Amino acid sequence: MIQFDSMFSAAKPIITLTTDFGLGDPYVGAMKGVILNIAAEATVVDITHLIQSHDIVEAALVLRSSYSFFPPGTIHVIVVDPGVGSCRLPILLATEKYFFVGPDNGVLSPVHRLAQQAEIFHLTATEYFLKPVSNTFHGRDIFSAVAGWLSKGIDPGRLGKRISNLQELKLPLVRKIDENRMIGTILRADRFGNLITNVSVQDLSLPGKDLLPFVVRIADKTIAQLCSSYAEAPPGELFAIWGSLGLLEISVNQGSAAEILQASKAQEFVVELRP
Amino acid sequence: MIQFDSMFSAAKPIITLTTDFGLGDPYVGAMKGVILNIAAEATVVDITHLIQSHDIVEAALVLRSSYSFFPPGTIHVIVVDPGVGSCRLPILLATEKYFFVGPDNGVLSPVHRLAQQAEIFHLTATEYFLKPVSNTFHGRDIFSAVAGWLSKGIDPGRLGKRISNLQELKLPLVRKIDENRMIGTILRADRFGNLITNVSVQDLSLPGKDLLPFVVRIADKTIAQLCSSYAEAPPGELFAIWGSLGLLEISVNQGSAAEILQASKAQEFVVELRP
Amino acid sequence: MIQFDSMFSAAKPIITLTTDFGLGDPYVGAMKGVILNIAAEATVVDITHLIQSHDIVEAALVLRSSYSFFPPGTIHVIVVDPGVGSCRLPILLATEKYFFVGPDNGVLSPVHRLAQQAEIFHLTATEYFLKPVSNTFHGRDIFSAVAGWLSKGIDPGRLGKRISNLQELKLPLVRKIDENRMIGTILRADRFGNLITNVSVQDLSLPGKDLLPFVVRIADKTIAQLCSSYAEAPPGELFAIWGSLGLLEISVNQGSAAEILQASKAQEFVVELRP
Repeated sequence: MIQFDSMFSAAKPIITLTTDFGLGDPYVGAMKGVILNIAAEATVVDITHLIQSHDIVEAALVLRSSYSFFPPGTIHVIVVDPGVGSCRLPILLATEKYFFVGPDNGVLSPVHRLAQQAEIFHLTATEYFLKPVSNTFHGRDIFSAVAGWLSKGIDPGRLGKRISNLQELKLPLVRKIDENRMIGTILRADRFGNLITNVSVQDLSLPGKDLLPFVVRIADKTIAQLCSSYAEAPPGELFAIWGSLGLLEISVNQGSAAEILQASKAQEFVVELRP
Repeated sequence: MIQFDSMFSAAKPIITLTTDFGLGDPYVGAMKGVILNIAAEATVVDITHLIQSHDIVEAALVLRSSYSFFPPGTIHVIVVDPGVGSCRLPILLATEKYFFVGPDNGVLSPVHRLAQQAEIFHLTATEYFLKPVSNTFHGRDIFSAVAGWLSKGIDPGRLGKRISNLQELKLPLVRKIDENRMIGTILRADRFGNLITNVSVQDLSLPGKDLLPFVVRIADKTIAQLCSSYAEAPPGELFAIWGSLGLLEISVNQGSAAEILQASKAQEFVVELRP
Repeated sequence: MIQFDSMFSAAKPIITLTTDFGLGDPYVGAMKGVILNIAAEATVVDITHLIQSHDIVEAALVLRSSYSFFPPGTIHVIVVDPGVGSCRLPILLATEKYFFVGPDNGVLSPVHRLAQQAEIFHLTATEYFLKPVSNTFHGRDIFSAVAGWLSKGIDPGRLGKRISNLQELKLPLVRKIDENRMIGTILRADRFGNLITNVSVQDLSLPGKDLLPFVVRIADKTIAQLCSSYAEAPPGELFAIWGSLGLLEISVNQGSAAEILQASKAQEFVVELRP
């Protein structure tokens, strides 16, 4: 079992927020108010509030790219919650290093899979919720309140009852066409127009071997260049690069691959090995 | 009289910011610098900086939806200030629970009306302003500086002289057409396309009685469904819902009511009672 | 030499962030995670993350308009870094009052020029970097990590080796046409549509004398009105105003000069003296 006590040794508790609430509405402010009203000494950090409305896959990707840089004991609150008010469960995922609080809709399954130890709790202890709990804003009434109490050292076991599974995220899989070709999918574009794909280093390697040479065919373009930094490629030229998640990205130095390729989320492309 | 001393007992002073300064300019950063230069131990929380330029009504609504979740003693700074440099007064509103600092242009009247006790001060003590005070940026030079000093426990009475009134916000009123019909107005759309209106529970209830059944007629649509959560309605279908402010909202599950109805701020609609 | 010890006396170290990473990606969250993992007690303040991609001039302007309001000892991290992974140096600029951490691409030259004392360090001490350092994200792996350690009181001399120069920023200069006319350039538009130009008070003054009267000719308009506050001009009318940086701005009361003039960054205009 995880020794939760040791996770609260940090000088200052840190609570991060990842939501699709945007930055122009009162929703994020209300969440921070609830947290600070319970735990005035907490440091609240925005990961992002610009997840596309209801886009659980994007939230999972952004979380997976950022959560592990925070100190042990950090409480990550993730609220992209199209099912608020329905029967989806509010949960707490505790791993050997972090806490994750949010609706059980798949958004936590990638970090769950990466954890060495994990315990999952269905949040049922209403005495740690805001009163009354609305049907429309659990981000404020349940998840922020629970995160606040958790940062005060409340034992996870007092917040709800242990459950054994959480929802799995449905991510598009890499599909083989034949021995040397596979179909990948663009997961999202970032602000620079870099296209983050679902193709991982493992997909393009022989077991226990080095990475194989490959080309990417997307739209009417063939990309043969693999760079290790953006500045390595001549300006304006498309290239492939391994991003910080170990996922293949398609980029352009000083330009937007998304714009040049007119490509965005869910678009497919072909990777061809050149063994 | 309000006992201000007791409001400063919080471990860490909290200062919130609500402005129309946007997130791409140096203005918000400068405000935070001024605050932290006076009160390095303050926690500064962004409510939003994306209020539409000069939209005092939107600022008042966002403030009203978020301020009350913060701990007692929180200092709320609201700077949507089309009249900066003119004769509008810089003020401090102190209630039994919070401080509000900003220009006296109506933005504080809704929270003033909700307060049980209230004292208003015209900010005149220039020794608590930045020097020199510009004519273009009181958010930085007056309001941030005063908020910083206030968080250090400076008595409100030392910041200015007591005045008895503040400007009233001009909000569109619900207008009766006849016994059973009234005209409501959309106040704003949120990021999800939910349309927040000026129709309150009181408008649709008999005195001391329950809520009456009603339909909403907007554009060429009639909305008869009243839901208590977003997920309750079938995806894509318009419905009415009571929002967290006690105001009627028009929404769509997994869709944008603003888009479907091509509706936005200031648009009117009819509510018809079905008693 | 600068006495760095005395700069760490602040109760709480403050680290500001100015980047072009946007607010929808995991990049800013990862930077904050790295900082807080090293220095949990640091206060991290966003100046902005909406610098236009790779726009070093805009980053320099926003920094110059905000850095000086922060308390002594503040660590300013500026990452607009089109050359990441190339040979541009990661540097630390220490002045008599602040620290600045970022790539040496010119972004720090305006604050360097304003400093009374300055020491520049090429960041070479990899033990203060994240491991491994990626080729694509020095904002996280080098600059955030170094800022974190710096906030813990690490001596700048231990972070790298002293160098004598930094890159100069290429800003458009005011060009004289004849005795009474010069060509100015718009540097950027802010959220309100105010046009910030490269024309300074010095450009329009006789040496040691007062400001000369002038008109601005831009697009097909002539602007003769100089105001000292936005509200001073009639709504909708174009006027000139001295902004908080001592640079000439072109504005409209309750309107957007950028929209009315269809003007944006890099557009030129004529200033004509009327001596």
